[in-house]
Amino acid sequence: MPAQQVVYVERGALLQEAIEAAGIPLALPCGGQGRCGRCIVVVQEGQVRRRSVARLTPQEVEQGYALACQTLVEGDLVVYVPPQEERIVRLEVGLAAEKEAPEVVVCEHEQAPWVAKCHLKVDPPSLADNTTDFERLQRELVRQHGITGLVASLPIMRKLAGALRAEDWEVTAVVEKGTWASSQGPPRLVDIRPGDTTEHTLGLAIDIGTTTNVVYLVDLQSKALLGRASAYNGQISCGEDVISRIIYSQRPGGLEHLQQLVLNTLNGLIDELLAAHGASPEDVYFATVAGNPTMIHLFLGLDPRHIRLEPHIPTVNHPPPVRAGELGLRIHPEATVDCLPGVGAYVGADITAGVLRSRMSEEEPITLFIDVGTNGELVLGNKDWLISCACSAGPAFEGSGVVSGMRATVGAIQEVWINPQTFEPTYETIGNAPPKGICGSGMISLLGEMFITGVIDKSGHVNRSLDTPRVREGPGGGEYVVAWAAETEDKKRDIVLTEVDIQNLLRAKAAIYAGMNVLATSVGLELEDIERILIGGAFGKYIDIEKAIEIGLLPDMPWDRFAYLGNTSVQGAYLCLLCPEHRAMVREIASKMTYLELSADNSFMNAFTSALFLPHTDLEQFPSVREKLRNVERLGGS
Amino acid sequence: MPAQQVVYVERGALLQEAIEAAGIPLALPCGGQGRCGRCIVVVQEGQVRRRSVARLTPQEVEQGYALACQTLVEGDLVVYVPPQEERIVRLEVGLAAEKEAPEVVVCEHEQAPWVAKCHLKVDPPSLADNTTDFERLQRELVRQHGITGLVASLPIMRKLAGALRAEDWEVTAVVEKGTWASSQGPPRLVDIRPGDTTEHTLGLAIDIGTTTNVVYLVDLQSKALLGRASAYNGQISCGEDVISRIIYSQRPGGLEHLQQLVLNTLNGLIDELLAAHGASPEDVYFATVAGNPTMIHLFLGLDPRHIRLEPHIPTVNHPPPVRAGELGLRIHPEATVDCLPGVGAYVGADITAGVLRSRMSEEEPITLFIDVGTNGELVLGNKDWLISCACSAGPAFEGSGVVSGMRATVGAIQEVWINPQTFEPTYETIGNAPPKGICGSGMISLLGEMFITGVIDKSGHVNRSLDTPRVREGPGGGEYVVAWAAETEDKKRDIVLTEVDIQNLLRAKAAIYAGMNVLATSVGLELEDIERILIGGAFGKYIDIEKAIEIGLLPDMPWDRFAYLGNTSVQGAYLCLLCPEHRAMVREIASKMTYLELSADNSFMNAFTSALFLPHTDLEQFPSVREKLRNVERLGGS
Repeated sequence: MPAQQVVYVERGALLQEAIEAAGIPLALPCGGQGRCGRCIVVVQEGQVRRRSVARLTPQEVEQGYALACQTLVEGDLVVYVPPQEERIVRLEVGLAAEKEAPEVVVCEHEQAPWVAKCHLKVDPPSLADNTTDFERLQRELVRQHGITGLVASLPIMRKLAGALRAEDWEVTAVVEKGTWASSQGPPRLVDIRPGDTTEHTLGLAIDIGTTTNVVYLVDLQSKALLGRASAYNGQISCGEDVISRIIYSQRPGGLEHLQQLVLNTLNGLIDELLAAHGASPEDVYFATVAGNPTMIHLFLGLDPRHIRLEPHIPTVNHPPPVRAGELGLRIHPEATVDCLPGVGAYVGADITAGVLRSRMSEEEPITLFIDVGTNGELVLGNKDWLISCACSAGPAFEGSGVVSGMRATVGAIQEVWINPQTFEPTYETIGNAPPKGICGSGMISLLGEMFITGVIDKSGHVNRSLDTPRVREGPGGGEYVVAWAAETEDKKRDIVLTEVDIQNLLRAKAAIYAGMNVLATSVGLELEDIERILIGGAFGKYIDIEKAIEIGLLPDMPWDRFAYLGNTSVQGAYLCLLCPEHRAMVREIASKMTYLELSADNSFMNAFTSALFLPHTDLEQFPSVREKLRNVERLGGS
Repeated sequence: MPAQQVVYVERGALLQEAIEAAGIPLALPCGGQGRCGRCIVVVQEGQVRRRSVARLTPQEVEQGYALACQTLVEGDLVVYVPPQEERIVRLEVGLAAEKEAPEVVVCEHEQAPWVAKCHLKVDPPSLADNTTDFERLQRELVRQHGITGLVASLPIMRKLAGALRAEDWEVTAVVEKGTWASSQGPPRLVDIRPGDTTEHTLGLAIDIGTTTNVVYLVDLQSKALLGRASAYNGQISCGEDVISRIIYSQRPGGLEHLQQLVLNTLNGLIDELLAAHGASPEDVYFATVAGNPTMIHLFLGLDPRHIRLEPHIPTVNHPPPVRAGELGLRIHPEATVDCLPGVGAYVGADITAGVLRSRMSEEEPITLFIDVGTNGELVLGNKDWLISCACSAGPAFEGSGVVSGMRATVGAIQEVWINPQTFEPTYETIGNAPPKGICGSGMISLLGEMFITGVIDKSGHVNRSLDTPRVREGPGGGEYVVAWAAETEDKKRDIVLTEVDIQNLLRAKAAIYAGMNVLATSVGLELEDIERILIGGAFGKYIDIEKAIEIGLLPDMPWDRFAYLGNTSVQGAYLCLLCPEHRAMVREIASKMTYLELSADNSFMNAFTSALFLPHTDLEQFPSVREKLRNVERLGGS
């Protein structure tokens, strides 16, 4: 099916052989080893025996799904062979469903929002009632909205007399709950407008990633997420990672320049979102900001130099709330910009926000939270305790320090399969465009395949004795050609992964795995005691867990212990924007979290060295990978 | 004595006649009526009978002082006749002692000052103690100074890392008690400096008068007053009184211009004071400001328009504390500028500060506090209640609207006596310089003399039938010549007081007297129930109580019920600068004080009309003046 072709094969033959015999094309990117799931078919009638159900859910097996390369014919069958596109689409949809966490987390608290618009009809003054404008407004806010002790800054005080009289003593007061020193202070008048303008009460949740900046536009009253926008952090032109940004900030004017660059990026995103929703900057009254400590320092214009220098001391973990006007963020100048708290030099508001979003600090199970962005940060704990560390993974997975590396944009190779007999690769690119380079998920995929198929050994050295033009000696030592120049977009250069690239990737993955080990050990646990692993961060979304385990980036555990949470940093900021209760929680998370400085920990170096192999010096820690290596051998791989 | 001359006169003769007989010159400015006190002598031996002891204290009488024109010879005498200069000096010194209240009021509270410099030796960070800079500072402030919950603004946060490391973790933290919403809020880091710089911790008390601005420079730690400076408010070029300033503020850019003018004046005074004490603007960490509501609005850049328009509504009575940098006041940009609270459109912080200074709100006696500046404000009450009003007296007493009027500077005629027989005047000028014009005290003095000697009648009309060239018909009706052009500085114009001038002065004094009446009536009191009258304000200092009673500006009461307090506005600001307790008190005074809007009060018009006469329609209210008029008649005045 669906072509209604009939073929005859021996009992015990592979379904794959029967389909081939029927002349139906069926690509086997993994060489028919049941690894890639691309030969999926549906057995509509008859008996089969499945050698492997890898990549199939129990429901799918029950519905007759089978891998053609792993399924034996037991009798007469009716088999539906989906067109190749459909198979790929099914996988991608499945993958997407699996990987895309709901970006719109829900605030379950009933709390009033940070900023409320209060519509007021004010009794006009008279000689008999000559209370001042401000005290009159205060009086009406008590009477009509129960808001006591309102304060106002000078710029708003200057607008007051005009606003009250412009529409005959009907006004809309924009009032913010006190935020200074964590929601203590008195309520504050953020703006006063003539008439009834309660329509727009907007806020922003902002994630300042080293690479990507994300802005959520939110209706503070309805708690609705109106829109999202993201763009590369404009600071990339001054360095790809936090260390190079810090170095840049030490030039004359460097700090101011970096601050302006990120403000430009954010203001661009804000303009885009506001234009799309017919709103103006003056309608945005509150912003929460998450990001790593260096990003937050640069955003606030704080010198980040001592984050880099031992003993790695930020100026502040809990920055004060700032007025948008003071900062240059293009929203209402009186709006509070509230940077969420961090914990240490490399564990910042992105992580505390992520922990808030993950809920791990409210629940019983021992959880490992991983944020893999330009750096790798880890938090281990549960509702009773939290310990964190940062692994200087470096930007290899983000495409930096890798010859053919690139960020995850159109044309990036994101998934690779290598045929263990021919060593020919099959790859997929983002947008199915001609390849331009390899992004992080592609590197993990490629590294795993090269290792499993024996293109490289466990030290990452290329096996030069293989009989394939794909393996060759390049300027940087041995290398493997993923795509020939002719296939690429610009037709100029082969896309390769070199031994130097591989060593960079091994160091990155080793740093993260070693971090997990040291973190667990520091609290007397083994990795297997971890009940679940939650993956956040911009890059985390693209990690294929299977491949990540193959290369020893993630510990070898049943896949159901892993979950993807997407960009946890912006989601945490979003929760804090919706509700002061969440803001208090993230503050508590920051206060509760221990920060383990790995550079001060000798055991880290040992763990790191042991993890510099594929998947690890100690293969016992990766039983599923060992099994896979055996299968490849059994099935005739090199 | 001291010339040892001997003369013989009949028993019962006037001492004055004896002295004349001895050939000693003895000027009698008041015509020998015992009014001016200029013929003072000392009876060293022998018996005399004193008809009047006006202008002499009981102590002086006991010591033998006597008025030559009012003292009868009863037998042989030894009389010391001081040289004329000495007599004048004695009067001036006495006057000064009487009028000059101690400008340096004392703060009796033991409270810590608003701003404290905390010298700290901070433990340097290490990998084992990697607390951030700010949290480390917070920790040390708790440990070493018991200061908890410190907050800091972004500009100071930006200095922190550098300051801590500049002198090996020895710093001086400048910490302000919370002032937002009346000393609630958390302590705030105003500045952080490397090393031990606890020396200068300065503050300013500022009085923004419509005419004169005064600045006190204060050491906040020792509570010592380091210096005072004053200058005319630069806004005078845009109008002499608050109404003309408000009108000016409505021009395009007018408000900003007025704000800049007063800032220029204040910044000039601050520079002068700081230069004199070898301090820099960055050493000044706090400022309290008093002034009338219009002055405070202009200072803060708040539109004062509705203060002028009925129903006379200021934007705010309790302005928020402002950062000096936000305002443009040239002290530390993070310093709090705290404008004291007002009560109504024309009863402002100058009055609440004055009441604080007067202590009337802490004591039992029913007290009337009068602040006569460009306007006249009155407060009646005691520790249980306070009621206030503003009388639009206008600037006549400040020299505006009076042909020969001028402010109280060198060359201003400040005291006048008229001989009731010849109608020739004797005057004194400030600095004993040739006369240029007449200042407020001169006008009160002149008006009183003209009335007592019959140059004008009780309606203020000039008696044209008098046989003297001093009385004549001028372009503005009848007028009296105080000084001929030849005597004046520029020798160009006679210095006169015209009937138009007199009407302006009558309206001014009537407004104040009527205000007192209405205020007392509104709480069911008569003027004679007032137990004391305290006079403050820039102009108050120069009012001669006797003359002020003569013209019906002040109620006819024993002189010992009056006291001068000097510039009560700046003194109140000074108390609030020294001590948060006083700041809380002035807030309570403002909250407690009822504001009576006279333009909404019908009885005011009646009282005003009755007071448009000299001293008043109802002479019964001024028994001492009636007595004086009788004496003048008896002694042969017109």
